[in-house]
Amino acid sequence: MTGLLTDLYELTMAAGYFEAGKAAQKATFELSIRRLPNHRNFVVAAGLAQCVEYLLNLRFTSEEIAYLRELPQFAQVSPKFFDYLHDFRFTGDLFAAPEGTPLFAGEPMLTVRAPLIEAQIPETYLLSAITFQSLVASKAARMVEAGGGRDVVEFGTRRAHTPEAGVLGARAAYIGGCAGTSNALAGMRFGIPVFGTAAHSWVLSFPSEMESFRQLQKLLGPHTVQLIDTYDTVEGARRAAELGKPLWGVRLDSGDVISLARTVRSILDEAGLRDTKIMATGDLDEYKIRDIVAAGAPVDAFGVGTELATSADAPTMGTVYKLVELDICGIKRFTAKFSEHKESLPGAKQLFRLADHDVLGRSAECCGGAEAILRPVILGGRLIEELPSVSAARVRALESLAQLPAEFRDLEPSTPRRLEYSKDLTALIERTRRNLV
Amino acid sequence: MTGLLTDLYELTMAAGYFEAGKAAQKATFELSIRRLPNHRNFVVAAGLAQCVEYLLNLRFTSEEIAYLRELPQFAQVSPKFFDYLHDFRFTGDLFAAPEGTPLFAGEPMLTVRAPLIEAQIPETYLLSAITFQSLVASKAARMVEAGGGRDVVEFGTRRAHTPEAGVLGARAAYIGGCAGTSNALAGMRFGIPVFGTAAHSWVLSFPSEMESFRQLQKLLGPHTVQLIDTYDTVEGARRAAELGKPLWGVRLDSGDVISLARTVRSILDEAGLRDTKIMATGDLDEYKIRDIVAAGAPVDAFGVGTELATSADAPTMGTVYKLVELDICGIKRFTAKFSEHKESLPGAKQLFRLADHDVLGRSAECCGGAEAILRPVILGGRLIEELPSVSAARVRALESLAQLPAEFRDLEPSTPRRLEYSKDLTALIERTRRNLV
Repeated sequence: MTGLLTDLYELTMAAGYFEAGKAAQKATFELSIRRLPNHRNFVVAAGLAQCVEYLLNLRFTSEEIAYLRELPQFAQVSPKFFDYLHDFRFTGDLFAAPEGTPLFAGEPMLTVRAPLIEAQIPETYLLSAITFQSLVASKAARMVEAGGGRDVVEFGTRRAHTPEAGVLGARAAYIGGCAGTSNALAGMRFGIPVFGTAAHSWVLSFPSEMESFRQLQKLLGPHTVQLIDTYDTVEGARRAAELGKPLWGVRLDSGDVISLARTVRSILDEAGLRDTKIMATGDLDEYKIRDIVAAGAPVDAFGVGTELATSADAPTMGTVYKLVELDICGIKRFTAKFSEHKESLPGAKQLFRLADHDVLGRSAECCGGAEAILRPVILGGRLIEELPSVSAARVRALESLAQLPAEFRDLEPSTPRRLEYSKDLTALIERTRRNLV
Repeated sequence: MTGLLTDLYELTMAAGYFEAGKAAQKATFELSIRRLPNHRNFVVAAGLAQCVEYLLNLRFTSEEIAYLRELPQFAQVSPKFFDYLHDFRFTGDLFAAPEGTPLFAGEPMLTVRAPLIEAQIPETYLLSAITFQSLVASKAARMVEAGGGRDVVEFGTRRAHTPEAGVLGARAAYIGGCAGTSNALAGMRFGIPVFGTAAHSWVLSFPSEMESFRQLQKLLGPHTVQLIDTYDTVEGARRAAELGKPLWGVRLDSGDVISLARTVRSILDEAGLRDTKIMATGDLDEYKIRDIVAAGAPVDAFGVGTELATSADAPTMGTVYKLVELDICGIKRFTAKFSEHKESLPGAKQLFRLADHDVLGRSAECCGGAEAILRPVILGGRLIEELPSVSAARVRALESLAQLPAEFRDLEPSTPRRLEYSKDLTALIERTRRNLV
């Protein structure tokens, strides 16, 4: 049922290309980051696996085609186009930055090269799939950095923009460096470690807090995390301490985390529970995590929901999907938009990463020993090899971020990463600009 | 596959309730709005249909159960619990505010009354499903209000948090008053009017702008909307005017909308195209729409994407799902949390709407001639009647908002809607508070 999961204009344009005899023209579209999200010094690429799944399975059912035929916008379209849709398959190529790659403003995330219609229809889906997960992965990376080595666990499905977005957000958060998620389906589907504690309803459902603690301990044994703020956090800590082991930790969900963590730590230590951990949750973001860590509060792990699952301070990002090249019977035409603040650069490209800057070149260029970021993923409609696992993407993100100059990992704005254009690309931009009257 | 689409702790708590012999206890949970989203004077309820679909189809597959059994958190759980999950069905009741109902801080959106486990597991899904769509519906209502009668069309799937969220966001935006969506699948699935124009790639793919305009006109006839800013908006307008009818309208996607709309209007009028419309798109929000309308710019319709599909200035909302009542062998126990800023009120409730304020009472109360907002939707696991259509929900939203005092429809903050507690509820709160020591 994915064929219709796009903007109507992709489909009317498809019909128009078909009617205008442009179906065989080979197009190159580039999905790139026009502007970084607010408050971000980098973006961690994530969501490629969902883009690949989409392209490999993109079909139009008979029901979908019947729906389109009834629309007034398709009244002039010949029956042959609907036959074409019926047999539609993506037969093109996809080049992409691997998941876990840090990217910057002006840089491409992926390139689609395919017959014009096949490259046009996926625009909407690809933009949404990759932008959302990249936003969450980037937010997660900031939180993990702020946590200074403490575990950050993603607890945000209830705040995600649909439960299904919670599953994919959990995936992205893990790629961004989170230790795991509360989302059970994400655990099963992607092999991400799953964590959980208990809710206030658990505590309230028993005649006393102590009874609820006892029952949780019986259930979870060494995985027990007691939620101690339902009535009074300090009293709750005393009760958890009195009950003793097995006890992985206690969770603070309200009040002043910094002072409560200190008090709770003393209570636990005095009861000999020195290895019992303290987890903080409740409207945390990377700035609050940084402040808790900076204050030296004895918090061992953070659970984050709302802010992470929605990338709340930057829920959108200026990604665009632009036609950059068209091959018409072997003759290449390079396309670009030079509107103010909305420009796009012509031609299929490659991104090269160097220690202190990146270079944007044309797709066939080499750039010394620099890493070429865009790699072939699908060729001729076929996946060339299994994508790296989410764990591999997570390692790539952690290692790549660690190699960046420190200022990019800071929560405050850095100077923008330098992006140079290669000589060949610069020449192509100039030629294309002159051709546009 | 929906059983695992929840937080792990819902499932460990379920196991704990089961092991503690609490499976038969009947619980009432309330999903309510603790705080309004930022910059919002009201919330338009949306997403109920997805909650209902979830509750009616909530199951655990053998594969899901096998996954849970392998988790360390379930190591102590008896095999009987997994048999229970295998046969799991939601057999309880759901009461809810109909979609399209404006709600305010402190008000319930829905109530679930079911055996404790059945009411606990849905927490995560229900919160996410209803919060997201309500955010988008509320944002849409503000944009439609700002548009002062001009059509506002939702174009945001590419910015939604996953493509699937785009489908449900389109649904919510329509309920909030939008004229339609660009999302073709939302059109097919929910019967929402679909609209589309053409992208810059369309224009760029032809040798000239004029040729692209001609081809679009041939394709779409009277539905043609020419995108005129690819090279130069004023030149584009002249070309569209030269080509003449059939032409529904032209679209401005960049530059200063207010002055460009005036220039473009003159060009169209001089060419005798007085009924050709001007649509504005490009990073619009309700404030920009208001300013364009206030300036008297000749814009006839707005297309909005990013800001609407993500509710960008308020991507989250403080909804909570709290245990308020537990029936243990016929004895009722009322539960509440009195933590600062995180309180919840005991007992199943009803919300009554009066002209200038609302009253929160206990579920069995009457309140004169006031409208009771929470209505039975599912009883004993069965849907009692088909839910109203999205069109009916949209009418409810438009009519209900029109009846509110004008200050709530203003884009700027209003005084909060007055919410009184009934005498019975006040007495129950006091009794519950005294019992909590």
